[in-house]
Formats: sequence, structure tokens, C-alpha cells
Amino acid sequence: MKSLRIGLVGIGTVGQGVYKNLEKNADLIAERCGIRLEIVRVAEKFWDRKRVVDVPQAKRCTEAAEVTRDPKIDVVIELIGGTTIAGDIILDALKHKKPVVTANKALLAHRGEELFAAAAKNHTNIFYEASVAGGIPIIKALREGLIANRIQSIHGIINGTCNYILSRMAAEGADFEAVLKDAQAQGYAEANPSLDVDGGDTAHKAVILASLAYGFWVDFDKVHIEGIRSVTAADMQYADKLGYVIKLLATIKADGGKQVEVRVHPTLVPKGHLLASINGVFNAVFVRGDVVGDTAYYGRGAGMDATSSAIISDLVDIALDMKFNAHRRVPPFVPHKMYGKLKPMDDVISRYYLRLDVVDKPGVLAQIATILGKANIGIMSVIQPEGHEGQKVPLILMIHDAKDSAMRAALDKIDKLDCVRSQSVMFRVESFE
Amino acid sequence: MKSLRIGLVGIGTVGQGVYKNLEKNADLIAERCGIRLEIVRVAEKFWDRKRVVDVPQAKRCTEAAEVTRDPKIDVVIELIGGTTIAGDIILDALKHKKPVVTANKALLAHRGEELFAAAAKNHTNIFYEASVAGGIPIIKALREGLIANRIQSIHGIINGTCNYILSRMAAEGADFEAVLKDAQAQGYAEANPSLDVDGGDTAHKAVILASLAYGFWVDFDKVHIEGIRSVTAADMQYADKLGYVIKLLATIKADGGKQVEVRVHPTLVPKGHLLASINGVFNAVFVRGDVVGDTAYYGRGAGMDATSSAIISDLVDIALDMKFNAHRRVPPFVPHKMYGKLKPMDDVISRYYLRLDVVDKPGVLAQIATILGKANIGIMSVIQPEGHEGQKVPLILMIHDAKDSAMRAALDKIDKLDCVRSQSVMFRVESFE
Repeated sequence: MKSLRIGLVGIGTVGQGVYKNLEKNADLIAERCGIRLEIVRVAEKFWDRKRVVDVPQAKRCTEAAEVTRDPKIDVVIELIGGTTIAGDIILDALKHKKPVVTANKALLAHRGEELFAAAAKNHTNIFYEASVAGGIPIIKALREGLIANRIQSIHGIINGTCNYILSRMAAEGADFEAVLKDAQAQGYAEANPSLDVDGGDTAHKAVILASLAYGFWVDFDKVHIEGIRSVTAADMQYADKLGYVIKLLATIKADGGKQVEVRVHPTLVPKGHLLASINGVFNAVFVRGDVVGDTAYYGRGAGMDATSSAIISDLVDIALDMKFNAHRRVPPFVPHKMYGKLKPMDDVISRYYLRLDVVDKPGVLAQIATILGKANIGIMSVIQPEGHEGQKVPLILMIHDAKDSAMRAALDKIDKLDCVRSQSVMFRVESFE
Repeated sequence: MKSLRIGLVGIGTVGQGVYKNLEKNADLIAERCGIRLEIVRVAEKFWDRKRVVDVPQAKRCTEAAEVTRDPKIDVVIELIGGTTIAGDIILDALKHKKPVVTANKALLAHRGEELFAAAAKNHTNIFYEASVAGGIPIIKALREGLIANRIQSIHGIINGTCNYILSRMAAEGADFEAVLKDAQAQGYAEANPSLDVDGGDTAHKAVILASLAYGFWVDFDKVHIEGIRSVTAADMQYADKLGYVIKLLATIKADGGKQVEVRVHPTLVPKGHLLASINGVFNAVFVRGDVVGDTAYYGRGAGMDATSSAIISDLVDIALDMKFNAHRRVPPFVPHKMYGKLKPMDDVISRYYLRLDVVDKPGVLAQIATILGKANIGIMSVIQPEGHEGQKVPLILMIHDAKDSAMRAALDKIDKLDCVRSQSVMFRVESFE
């Protein structure tokens, strides 16, 4: 039986998962694909760290180049993370005609175009199933399973940490900071949680999904990103009363023309929708295609095992492509002309949830409604919890479809009113219509 | 640009979907995969029927052999259905070295092994993404995306008609017959609904999923099949009270050893589980792998458009394999040794929901509990709606894990008690633990 000789760069959590699971299911995988997948070398700077797998001395090395440049290695898995050295390692592997598997979403979001061009130039390939939604085969689904479709929209819960925090906030009525602290203690959030809770990680994955679906490389720096720090327990309760839950969604949407929205922000999701029922660290991606209609994909978005399932499936694709000398049978990214560019956030139309802190006195609602009315922005419904005259009370408004620029301009005016006591909170509402 | 010359046999609903959507998205598909997909001939006996697509005279023919034997045709799509002529057509195409795409689950469930052997003998291939769960790329997910995994279990809602009927029964408190009639009037159920509501269609798909996942061909005739005719509005209400909804599930499960359960029957699903929230004609497949953990796949399980999305993705796989002369890069079925055979239904262990019609008099529960106790079968909980002494009342029992054979033997005894007035109803309960 043929074998695929694999070089692994970086043996942290995910690397150990790949090593462990390739050993565990080696025979089954070989029976299924007809090729043995063998890790023949592992490059790692810090061999003294404790690990769940025991890499024999003969397979250990410390320099990535010992993997990327060895002619006896067929494929390189990059798992060191970061956007600088990892990029150099991948470029070096490609230069040596080796296909690369990576889970590095930050790197792909920032330098995907460059890396994919290098892969094309060297007649080799990059696979990255593990970069989005962990073990869920969403890249394969978009790239192959749904190839017949113009993708109309993608809505993803693709950051487990945020979904864990928001799920607990909704279930327990707890505030962000308290749940974050507990999530950190339990290992569901990093000591520095910014990449997760401020939305950057979700945006990295959104850029990858959108670029793949729409065939033009989405500029990460132009993606609108809001994290979940501004969501309060009170927002969860108001949303619940209105029939929604609040999720951090990546929203990717094509209009009829040549523009695609890509944005990341807390979003009110109707309770009856599938995405509203995705709780804890689980991920889900909801994809609407013009031929297939609505589809969804659910699973663990992170973790050594789930992520390694995705990496191994990429390795099998590479092994089969090598067997048939079909190195770029499915390229990592195919530009196409159906959709051309990112829609400016100013032009994005959405419904909104507004929470204002106002002084409870006559005429307040009239002042706010007048500003919205003049901007031609319609109010769908209002919740004003009972308060005491002259005291601060929250005022919740649900707003009809309006342009982002118009909504922001109106909010600026509202925030300047005497009766509004702190900066208003605005979340978008998705109806999935 | 290269092109793939497609011959279509049968242009009913799904055939028209393939024709229409290949035309509609021809440019996009060609951009994405680098090959033009062109239907060059359509074989159909009844050209006088009304259709939503207009097939030019030059492409029309009436004999399947004009498609299967034409050297200018690269691939054959079989969409006539049935298990006899359709099989002959596929065998003829394979003999002429043409890969085949089919949506024919009945044919594959009954004759898959024979057809796949013929494909191997002729060094060509069969693709069948559309045969299970319509537009959901579940075959690709199992065959490729989850290839690293020992599949621990698959639970599928894979018949839209049954799920539509059960969803409406649950929502409206209506009985089976009434909803079926309405479903027929609205086109959600066939005039002869047996294949759907008696579970056969679900079992066809279960055989395909199980065979693919476990690497041995599952004998359709040995699959335990129960349909949904025995589910009543009252059962839905009792299930609801107990925290469940009733779904027709395909259940496929490996034990630690060499046996796999494959069974189709109404199943109580806990309300909090993802599958409980799948309503209407939608399908969902819940897959647990030893590496990836829990994953799920959701979408439309039928319809001209959704099904054609799956067929077109198969066509692209074939087109790419042809381009690289990699005709059996991914075979339709790979036998492997991890799991060997079907577990006899007698040995299957499950929880149960029992509904008995008993006479409301002292000692009834004691008699029933005694039979169960002697068989070492534990009662989890009991619902007995208030009745009038001496009259018939329902008695609902939730039963702990027990072997199917033991449960059936105990039920036989219970049904013979004087106090039990009609045949008991038994549904299985899935805990997804």
C-alpha cells in the first residue's frame, strides 16, 4: 500500500490531536482511502513541554525547514499559528512543491491571496478545512457539495468562546464580565480573550467563507466587526421578550447585483430559527443557495480532536490527488466574476434593536420618534419598562429595515438629546427572509 | 475550456431540475471547476408531457441505450427510478465505461452491491449524493469530510413526508389520517403514501448511509422497519408532557464490537436535541464520530431544485476525475473490516415508551409492573390520566434500557392480560447519550 509521508510543524493542542488520531485510526483510514497516512517528522521548538502523545526521538526536529525542504516529505501541516513565521513556513513548503494543510484562519484572512497565488505558481495546493468551524466539513461543502449554487447568504456561529458566553448569559441572566471570568477559569476563554470576544476570530473565518463562496478575495480590513462586550443580561432579557436570542453572527450576503456584505456583530436571531438553538461551544453555519435552498452544518468548532478530524480529511484529499497526479484538482480559491466587491457598511440594510437610557418624562419618546421619522426610519415596536418619573429607564426600540448610514446618523442625534443619558446600544436583527 | 458531455435518462421532476439549474448557473459552475457541464442528450419515453424546461429536438431521444452506448457521452444520469429497468440502464452505462450519477435510493438499497461491483469491474464509478437527504451533501461528508472517524452513530430525519406529517400532528394535535389527507391534497404526500409513511424510503437511505459508514453492505431485508401510522395525536401529547417529540428516525449505531444496528421506527427525541427542532419537509442527519464528536447536516430532502444541487456536485466530481484520469479516485463503496455485520433486532437495547389501553380498576398497574419486573425491565415513569373506575383509560409507561426481545416478550404477556383492552403501542426513546 502507498503511503503519504507527512511533516508536522508545531505540535501544540491541534498538532497532538492530529498525531494521536492518525495513530488511533490509521488502519481504518488506510482501508478507506487505500493509502497509509504517516507522520514522519515533527518540527517543534519546545520539546520539553508535556504532551499527550509520545513522538519518537527519530521523528523530532526543531527547525521547520527540516520539514519543508526534505524531499522525503510529501505534505506539510502548519500548526504554529500567527501570521508571520507561519506564512514563511507555508511559502517555503510551497516553494518546495509540497501541498500544505493549515488551520490558521488569521493567516489566511490576512495573507490568503498571497499564499494561494504561491500555491498556484508552484503547481501545488493549500487545504484549510480546519480553519473554519473546526470539525464541520463546511469548506468541502461550500467548495464541492454546493458548487451548483449561487450562494445567497451565509450566517455562521463560528466562535465557540463567544457562543459559550452568550449561551450562558441567556440561560443564567448573568452579565458578560462574570461569565467571561468563569469561562476563563474553565478553559473556554483565553487569558487574553480579545481575539474571540471582540469578533476578530469570527471575522477571520468570515473572510475565508465569503472569499470561497463569492470568488473574490475579501479585504479583512474592510469587514465591519463588533464583538460581544456590549451585550448585557438586560439585552438578553429584552430580546427574549421580543422573541429573539442574541448570537455573535458572521453575516455574508449577496444582493442581486455585484456586491457582497461581510460583517460580524451581535445579532438578534428569531427563537424559531435553527441558529437560535445552537448553544455552548458548538458552531453552526447556515448556508442559503439559489438551487439547494437552506442548508446548515453543525459541530464542534474547536478542540484537538474535532479540528484534527478536518485536518485528516484534507490529508486524505491530498493523498488521493497525489496518487492520481492531480495536484490542483480542487484549488484552494477560484476567482470568479459573479460577484465583484464588498458592499460598504454604510449601504447595508438591516433591522435594528436599540437600547437607550432615557429620563422618564413626558415627550421623550416623541423627541426620539421625531428624529427617526425625519430620517424615514420606521419603528416596529417599543418596550419601556415601568419606571419612576424623572429617573433613568431603558427604552427598547425595534426598527424596520434601514440603511446603516442613516441609522447611525439618527443615533448620533438621539445620543445628543438631553433626555438620553448614555451612549445608545444598537444591535442588528436578522429575519432570515 | 473542456466540457463534460452529459446524457440524462428520464426527465421527470428531478431531471427537469438538473436541466434547468445546469443552464441557469452554467457560467458560474464552469468558472468554479474549469469545465463546462453540458447535457447533450435526454432519453425519455413520454415527450408529450408538460415540462418546465424546453429540451431542443436535437437532444431528445426515446431509448436509454442511445445515451448509455453513445461514445460521445461522458457520463450518464439515471433518473427514471424503480429497481429493475433503472438497474439495467446503469449496468449498460457502466459496461460502456461511463460513470453514473443516480438519485435512486431504492435501487441502491436493493442492488447497490451488484452495481458497485460492476462499476469496479469496468474501472468507472457511481455517484449518489442525491439518493440520501436531497440537497444536503451528507454522502460527501461521510465519505470524505469525516473519513478520519469511526462513526459511532447516525440518526437521520430523512423522509420529508413523514416529518411534515409528524410536525403538523405535534403542532396541531391532529391525528395521522387527517394530516395525511391534507398532505396529499397539498402535494407533500403521494396518492399511495406507503413507501414514505411505512418507513421503506427511510430504510433505503439508512442502508446507504450505514453501508458507506461501516464498510459492509447492509442487507435491506434484515433492517427493522416501522412506519408512522401507529402514532396518534395522543402519543404526541404524552411525549410532549414527558419532554419529547416523536420523529421517524433512521438509527444506525455501532457497539464496541463488530455489530451495527440499522433500524427505522418512530422515536421519542428529547426536546432539547437538535433533531427535535427539525420541522416540516426538512431533513437532518446527526452524525457522531470518535474524532469529530457530534456533527449535523440540515436541508431540503427532496424537490427538483435541492436534489439537482446534489446531482450537479456529483457531476463536477466526475468532471474533475476525468480531467485527471482519476476515474475511481473516490469509489462509491469501500469495504473495510472495522465492523462486520448487522446486529439482530432482538439484541438491540433501547428505552421505550409504552401506551396501553387498560381498564381503570385497582391492581392493573401491579399486574403490568409484575410482568416487567420478572423480565428484569425497569419502569422510569408512569402517566395515567384521571379516569373513571371500570372504564378504559390510557396508561403510559417510560421504560429503562431493555433488550428488544425481552421487551417484546413482556409486551406479549401484557397484551394478554384481561385488563388490557387493545394491542399496546411501543415506541423507542433515544437519549443520544
